Amino acid sequence: MKAEIISVGTELLLGEIDDTNASYISRRLAAVGLDVYYRHTVGDNLKRLVQVLSGARRRASVIVLCGGLGPTPDDLTREALAELTGRPLQTVPEAEMRLHRFFAERGRTPTPSNFKQCQVPRGGELLDNPVGTAPGVWLQHEQNLYIAVPGPPPEMREMIDSQVLPRLRQMLKKNGTLWTRTLRLSGLGESQVADLLADLLAAQDNPTIALYASPGEVRVRLATKAPDEIAAQQVFAPVEQELRKRLGPAVYGVDDETMEVAVGQALLAAGATLAVAESCTGGLIASRITDVPGASRYFVAGYVTYSNQAKQDVLGVPADLLREKGAVSAECAEAMARGARQRSGADYAAAVTGIAGPGGGTPEKPVGLVYMAVADAQGVEVCRQLWPASREQFKQRVSQTVLDMIRRRIIGG
Amino acid sequence: MKAEIISVGTELLLGEIDDTNASYISRRLAAVGLDVYYRHTVGDNLKRLVQVLSGARRRASVIVLCGGLGPTPDDLTREALAELTGRPLQTVPEAEMRLHRFFAERGRTPTPSNFKQCQVPRGGELLDNPVGTAPGVWLQHEQNLYIAVPGPPPEMREMIDSQVLPRLRQMLKKNGTLWTRTLRLSGLGESQVADLLADLLAAQDNPTIALYASPGEVRVRLATKAPDEIAAQQVFAPVEQELRKRLGPAVYGVDDETMEVAVGQALLAAGATLAVAESCTGGLIASRITDVPGASRYFVAGYVTYSNQAKQDVLGVPADLLREKGAVSAECAEAMARGARQRSGADYAAAVTGIAGPGGGTPEKPVGLVYMAVADAQGVEVCRQLWPASREQFKQRVSQTVLDMIRRRIIGG
Repeated sequence: MKAEIISVGTELLLGEIDDTNASYISRRLAAVGLDVYYRHTVGDNLKRLVQVLSGARRRASVIVLCGGLGPTPDDLTREALAELTGRPLQTVPEAEMRLHRFFAERGRTPTPSNFKQCQVPRGGELLDNPVGTAPGVWLQHEQNLYIAVPGPPPEMREMIDSQVLPRLRQMLKKNGTLWTRTLRLSGLGESQVADLLADLLAAQDNPTIALYASPGEVRVRLATKAPDEIAAQQVFAPVEQELRKRLGPAVYGVDDETMEVAVGQALLAAGATLAVAESCTGGLIASRITDVPGASRYFVAGYVTYSNQAKQDVLGVPADLLREKGAVSAECAEAMARGARQRSGADYAAAVTGIAGPGGGTPEKPVGLVYMAVADAQGVEVCRQLWPASREQFKQRVSQTVLDMIRRRIIGG
Repeated sequence: MKAEIISVGTELLLGEIDDTNASYISRRLAAVGLDVYYRHTVGDNLKRLVQVLSGARRRASVIVLCGGLGPTPDDLTREALAELTGRPLQTVPEAEMRLHRFFAERGRTPTPSNFKQCQVPRGGELLDNPVGTAPGVWLQHEQNLYIAVPGPPPEMREMIDSQVLPRLRQMLKKNGTLWTRTLRLSGLGESQVADLLADLLAAQDNPTIALYASPGEVRVRLATKAPDEIAAQQVFAPVEQELRKRLGPAVYGVDDETMEVAVGQALLAAGATLAVAESCTGGLIASRITDVPGASRYFVAGYVTYSNQAKQDVLGVPADLLREKGAVSAECAEAMARGARQRSGADYAAAVTGIAGPGGGTPEKPVGLVYMAVADAQGVEVCRQLWPASREQFKQRVSQTVLDMIRRRIIGG
C-alpha cells in the first residue's frame, strides 16, 4: 500500500522552519509497511492544497496531511478535505466539550475561532489531541484514507504514535501488518556489516533483513508481517540474537534510540556517573547527553574549556604540556580527561580537543584534526582522527564518536 | 515568477535525514523574489522523478532540484532531465579536467563512475563545485529553467550562493530583480512591533515592509526592485535607520545572522570575553556560541554544572544556598553567574538553572520554570520565566533568551 505526505504551511515554503515533521511521519509509515513515494509541501492556500490532494489521491491509498488545523483563517486543511470530497464540515459535539474542558483546565476562555477546530468533513472522525487544541482528522472517502495531524511537533508525534499508527495497524491487519525492528550500529562500515552478515542477508526471508547506511551510521532492519507485535517479536528474537552475536558491541540501540540514550542506559546499568571536557565541540556533547530526560541521574558536570587558560584553571592541564605539545594533542586530551574525572568525582570522563575550522589549521595540525579521550579508574584511552568537514558536521561527528567511546568503555566492548 | 523545489533521495522519503536543504533553497529563492508554491520530495527512481518534473514544469518557470547528482547508479537527476527534455547527456571536457584535478589534489584516483558526473543534457551547462565532485546543472528548455544542485549541504549552499543566485539575479534583471533585507528582532511580540511601525506599514510601498513571526522571533522584511544590490541598499538605508530608531536594541541581526553571531559581534566590538554556567540547558548555550567560527576570540569557558555538587565545586555556589533556596532559584542563578565570572576571569558570565522536564517538577517549582542571570563588573541581572514545553523546545527557548540577555547587557540595551 502506498502513502503520500503533504506538509501544509506557508512558513515552510518560505524556509522559515525546517520540516522535521515530514521525516518523522515518513519513518513511522515505513515502520508499518506503507511505501511513501512522494512528499509535498504546500502553503496556506485552499486552491493549491486541493490541487495537491487531487494528485495524491490518484497515486496513493493513504494521504497524511500535517499542519493547517489551527483556529485561524489561514488554517485550511479541514476546508480542503471538505472541498475535495464534497463532504460539508460538521461540528462534533464531543470535541466542543473537550475544547471547553481544555481551556477551563488552563484558566482560559476559548474564542469563537477555536470552535472551527471542532469540525470535520461529514462521515469523518476527529482524533483527540491531549497536548493541544487542534484535533486530528480521520476520513475515509471512496478509495482513499485521509489523515490530518497538527503541525506543532509534540502534538504531531503524540497523535501519530498513540492514535494514527494503532488505527493503521488495525486497518492493515487483514493483509497481515508489517512490523519492523531496526538495530543501530556504530564503528562498522556498510561493507563490513554486509560481509559479517552475508549468509543471513542471502538466505533470510522471514524476517527480511536489510542494511541502510546514513552519515556515520549503519542500520540493520528486520521486517515481518504478523497479526500483532508479540508475534512479530517472536519472529525477530532468534535473528536478533544471531545478529547481536556477530555484531557485538557495534549494536548500540534499537529503532529510535539515539547514542545519547545508549550512553545513559549503559551508565544506569553500571551505576556509574559521567563528566565531559570539551574544546572543539563547545558543549555539544554535554547538550546531547542532557537531551535525555533523567540525565541528572548520571551526568555530573561538563567543562567547556575553550581557552588554554581555562584548560589549566578548570581541568588542571599543565602549562608546560600546553606549551610543548599544544592544546590539540593526545597529551592534552588525556590530561583534560584525567582532570575532568578527578575534579568532578565522576566514574567516567571524556575529553575532546581539535580544530573545527574553517580557520585555525596549520600544515602539522590541519582543520579536522581531533583527539578524543575517555578516562576511568583503569586509565585513559585516546583516539586520533582527521575529519575535514563543515564546522557543524565536524562537531556532530566528533560528538557521536566520543559518546560511542564512552559507551564501549562502560560495557567493555 | 514561480519556482518549485524538488528534493531527490530515497533516504529523505524513509525519514532517515531531515530535509534542511529545501528550507535553505526556499529562503534563497524568496530573497530574489521567486515565489515557491510547491515543494516535492521523490526517491531515487527515474520514472517518478520524471513524473514530478512533468507536473512542476506546467506550474513553474524555474525548477530547482537538489540531490541525485552523485556518481552511483542511484543518482538519476541528470538522467531524468535528459529524459524529460529529450536532450541526450553529453560529456563536458572541462569538467573531466576539473575532476582529474580534484582527485589529484587529494592524492586519489577517480573511478569510471565518477565521470558520469561530467555529463549534462545537450545545451545545458555544468555549475562548478569547488567543495565536492558533483557539478550542478543549469538547463534552459522551452519555457523552463532547470537548476540541479548536489545534496550534501555544504556543496548545495556554496553552489546556490556563489553561482545560482547571481545567475538568477542576472536573468531576472530585465524585470528589475527583487532585493530584500530582513531585520531580526527579539524581546518584542508581533503585535507590539505592528503597533510601533503602524504608520510605516500602512504608508510605505518602496521598499515594502512586511512582518513575519516564527517561534520566539519577529522579523521585519524590506523588499524593493532594483537593478543591483547597491541601488537596493540605497532604498533600504533611510527606512532601516527609522526602523532601528523605533525598535532600538530589539534588532539583533540582519538576514541570516543568528543570535549567537550577534553575541559574538557585541563581544568583539566591546573587546570583552564571556563564560557561561548551565544547568537545564546542559551545554546548548556554549554549543551555540561555539557554532560561530572564531568564537575562541571571546569565549573563555562553559560550565555544565548538572549536579548540586558540581555547582558547589565548580562554581562555588554555597551549600547553604542550595539547601535553603534550592538549585532552581534566583539566588542560585545569581551565584552561578558570579562564580562563572570569577573563576573564568571573563568580563561577562551568564547562568541558567531550571526544570526542563518531563519529570522533576513540583507544585512550587513546576516543569518549565527557569532562572537566567547575567553578571558583569556592575552586578548581576536575574530573570525568571515559566515556559512549559517539550524538553527540546524549552532548551532552545532558554538558550535564545540567555543569549539575548548577554547581548543586551553588553550593548546596554
